Amino acid sequence: MDKKIKKVGGQTVKLEHPPRIISAFSIVGPKEGEGPLKEYFDEVLSDETCGKETYEKAESEMMYTAITQAIKRASLKETDIDYMFAGDLLNQIISSGFAARDLNIPFFGLYGACSTMAESLGLAALIMDGGFANNVVASTSSHFCAAERQFRFPLEYGSQRSKTAQWTVTGSGAMILGKEGTQFPKITYVTTGVVKDYGIMDANNMGAAMAPAAVDTLYKHFKDTGRTPKSYDVITTGDLGKVGKTISDKLILEYGYDIRENHVDCGDIIFDNEVQGTDSGGSGCGCSAVVTAGYIYKKMMRREIKSALVISTGALMSTTSSLQGESIPGIAHAVAIEMD
Amino acid sequence: MDKKIKKVGGQTVKLEHPPRIISAFSIVGPKEGEGPLKEYFDEVLSDETCGKETYEKAESEMMYTAITQAIKRASLKETDIDYMFAGDLLNQIISSGFAARDLNIPFFGLYGACSTMAESLGLAALIMDGGFANNVVASTSSHFCAAERQFRFPLEYGSQRSKTAQWTVTGSGAMILGKEGTQFPKITYVTTGVVKDYGIMDANNMGAAMAPAAVDTLYKHFKDTGRTPKSYDVITTGDLGKVGKTISDKLILEYGYDIRENHVDCGDIIFDNEVQGTDSGGSGCGCSAVVTAGYIYKKMMRREIKSALVISTGALMSTTSSLQGESIPGIAHAVAIEMD
Repeated sequence: MDKKIKKVGGQTVKLEHPPRIISAFSIVGPKEGEGPLKEYFDEVLSDETCGKETYEKAESEMMYTAITQAIKRASLKETDIDYMFAGDLLNQIISSGFAARDLNIPFFGLYGACSTMAESLGLAALIMDGGFANNVVASTSSHFCAAERQFRFPLEYGSQRSKTAQWTVTGSGAMILGKEGTQFPKITYVTTGVVKDYGIMDANNMGAAMAPAAVDTLYKHFKDTGRTPKSYDVITTGDLGKVGKTISDKLILEYGYDIRENHVDCGDIIFDNEVQGTDSGGSGCGCSAVVTAGYIYKKMMRREIKSALVISTGALMSTTSSLQGESIPGIAHAVAIEMD
Repeated sequence: MDKKIKKVGGQTVKLEHPPRIISAFSIVGPKEGEGPLKEYFDEVLSDETCGKETYEKAESEMMYTAITQAIKRASLKETDIDYMFAGDLLNQIISSGFAARDLNIPFFGLYGACSTMAESLGLAALIMDGGFANNVVASTSSHFCAAERQFRFPLEYGSQRSKTAQWTVTGSGAMILGKEGTQFPKITYVTTGVVKDYGIMDANNMGAAMAPAAVDTLYKHFKDTGRTPKSYDVITTGDLGKVGKTISDKLILEYGYDIRENHVDCGDIIFDNEVQGTDSGGSGCGCSAVVTAGYIYKKMMRREIKSALVISTGALMSTTSSLQGESIPGIAHAVAIEMD
């Protein structure tokens, strides 16, 4: 059998024709717009509803805005985009499906929980590198109010939150991949994760459930590529939150890699818990989406950082699986983004 | 900008190195095992629970079985499979996520409702053609009892069914793509769909909601490739059911293509409604999965048909979107499968 495939090691592809991220757009809710990263977001909503009658419709509208604005920034039209890779947390990914309804772009719907941003960006990069597209859009979204009532309790109940609970980010990020433009960051490696489950049962402690998956994908990425933590200016996991970040730093150290110096977690940096009361930090597909499309992308375009390893982490349970006594499987995908 | 991509027309890729479907496995519930296609399925469950304590766990177990048996039939090991593309109907695609937990294969989770089989097969084929993998598995599943309680009512309620309602198939199909073997069918074209919504509001009439999407993708496929209905021995839509099939035959005729002679609908042929009381026919991710991995694949391997255009159709609503008064967006993806 022909073994000449573009994989290096077991789980990583080195892209022969690294696609460029030629534009990005991030839109967030009011709370995110008051947080430490506020200056990096392109649009901050004045209220959670985005002018819509339900939170779910608001989430879909955010994604539609992120995608159309990202297309516009790239000086492209909808018809220039060959594929849309998108997903979200809502049942049957309605935010993405309804956003795609208003866009005439061939649509691949994805679900990887909070890992979906790296999943969509990774697949989009592979499709570009495979020669199937000139431009692809990758996007994800989440909404605090929609997620709370779907996964936990409707906000009206006023339930108390666990200290290990994470705060679902209201936001959406979109990135457009193109072939050219040395002024833009490029995607160089895609490491696709396997599912890891260490038996965590507490849906209010997803950081702990996802940490082993993040560490596994990190380890595979380093092993496959021969790179080390120092190869990157910043390693962003998301969304482990404070609890999961500490666990993952310790776990990866056992494999011989010290990421403590350049490791930030999207969930950890998007809110200021002291002021904002967000417990273990942000989560949701939208969290790594807006941190990557906002913070990381802008830092790169400003030449403040030159390389980032973006690892989005997802907890693959549902309310049904938790009620049925299942533990929480985690997954993480990594995408390396670098300036020339 | 370099326009030399592998797309022909707006939505179709012609594969330069068509991957082969080197094995397939289909597993179905007892009712499907009593239907017209029973001889084509590889395993028929003796009861709906698959030996598990919940229907959701049963569905996940079916997918695990389909994938592991397909791998075994290809004389491969789990470690030979570079990627797993899978999805299902359950919230947060837990059937796929939990099946992936027991498989050490890099996992891309997908959601395209009942279009997911063609979505997974299409993406798997692109990833093969792009040179990123030696072997990929594509799989989807659905389960009547799990879907009824999630989307409609728990079976215990004994609710009456609408005549236009479809019957979710209990089953899972998996196909392994490889690079070689002229004795196997190959994937030649992948046409990725856009979302279409003609304002159908009735979640018990999904065939009507999905028909315009099926017709749009069919039309784009013919237009992009220059092919006609006669290019294929069989055109399988799925899962439009009886109602949606009739609508789509009429709609595509308006575009100048007559598919009535060689068009079968997976949902229409999997049950015998006269005997089995399945109303408008089968549906669910598992329907086109088992019809493709069972019926179509075996027909090809027996040289009874030489070419098939598989179009899986999905209705992208959720119970939440329906309750919020949204209409039902549809999507369809097409994959051309041919013998040498």
